[in-house]
Amino acid sequence: MTDGRASSLADQFAAAFRLHPAGVAIITADDGTGPAGLTATSVISVSARPALLAFSLSACSSTAPRIAAAETVVVHFLGAGQVELAKRFATSGIDRFGPPCRWYRLATGEPVLAEVDTWLRCRIAEQLTVGGSTLVVAKVEKVQLGRDRDAPLVYRDRTWYWLDEQAVMT
Amino acid sequence: MTDGRASSLADQFAAAFRLHPAGVAIITADDGTGPAGLTATSVISVSARPALLAFSLSACSSTAPRIAAAETVVVHFLGAGQVELAKRFATSGIDRFGPPCRWYRLATGEPVLAEVDTWLRCRIAEQLTVGGSTLVVAKVEKVQLGRDRDAPLVYRDRTWYWLDEQAVMT
Repeated sequence: MTDGRASSLADQFAAAFRLHPAGVAIITADDGTGPAGLTATSVISVSARPALLAFSLSACSSTAPRIAAAETVVVHFLGAGQVELAKRFATSGIDRFGPPCRWYRLATGEPVLAEVDTWLRCRIAEQLTVGGSTLVVAKVEKVQLGRDRDAPLVYRDRTWYWLDEQAVMT
Repeated sequence: MTDGRASSLADQFAAAFRLHPAGVAIITADDGTGPAGLTATSVISVSARPALLAFSLSACSSTAPRIAAAETVVVHFLGAGQVELAKRFATSGIDRFGPPCRWYRLATGEPVLAEVDTWLRCRIAEQLTVGGSTLVVAKVEKVQLGRDRDAPLVYRDRTWYWLDEQAVMT
C-alpha cells in the first residue's frame, strides 16, 4: 500500500469523503479504565426493528481501542450548540472529560455528556476488522430523545455547519 | 418484536435518526438483471488505506437485494443540484433509470448517473446480515472526483437541505 497508485487512490478517497457532509456524534464508553469518548461522523442506522446502528472506528484513533473494548457505548447526537464539545472530543492530548465538560454516569456505568439531550445507549453486537479499522454494529437498548428545537451540527471539509431553516430546499 | 416496549424503542430509535443529518448518495449496480439504484444516507468511510467504505441496505427496500447481489457498485455523492435525482431514486414503482434520468455504463458494466460528478466504483468485500438488514463493506477501486463548487445535499427529518456557506460556524 505504499506504491504511488495506492497512495493516490487513498488521497482521492479521502478527498471525496471530505466533501461528503455528515451529522456529528460523540461516542462514549468505559471499558473499565475510565471514561473514553471520541467525535464521530460515521454513525448510521442499520435497522429499526431490532434497533441497530453501526459506526466505524479509525485505526488512527488512540481512543478507538477503548471504545471497541467496552461492552456498551453511548452514542450522542450533537446539535449546533455543542460544536465546542465536538471539537473537544476530536482533540488529542487533553482530558476530554475534564472541565468545562459536564458528564455523569448512567446506573449501568456508561458516561453521558450532560450538554447533549439526544443519546442512545447501545450494546456492541458485532465488530468487523477491515483494513485496520473497525466497523462496529451495536444494538440499541435505550433512546433518550431531546428537544427537537436545536439546529443539528454538520461537518464537512474540516468545517462545522449548523443546518438552519434557510437552507431548506423547496 | 411485536410487544409494546419493543415497538416503542423502534419508534424512538427512528425518531432519533430522523433528526440526525446525513449526506446523500445514490448507489447503483447491475447484478445481471439490468441497472438498479437507490438513494442512501448511510454511506460512511471505514478506512483510507486500503480505501474501504460501508453502507446499510434496509430490509424494507425492494431494490436492496439487487445491490447486494452485485459484485461491484457505484456510490454517487450528490450535490444540492441533484435533489430531484435523490427523490427519484427514493421513489418506488417507477423506472428510476428512465427519462429524464441520464446514465451510461462504465467499461466494467456498472451504471453511472451522468448528472453526478463525484462517484466511487467499489467491489463488495463483506456483507453482514443484521436484523434483516444488510451492512455492506466495499473496497473502492476507482474514485471520480467532481468539481468542488456545488453545495452538497443534506437530508434530515424528511427534508432536503443544501449546505450553504452562510451556515458555516465561526
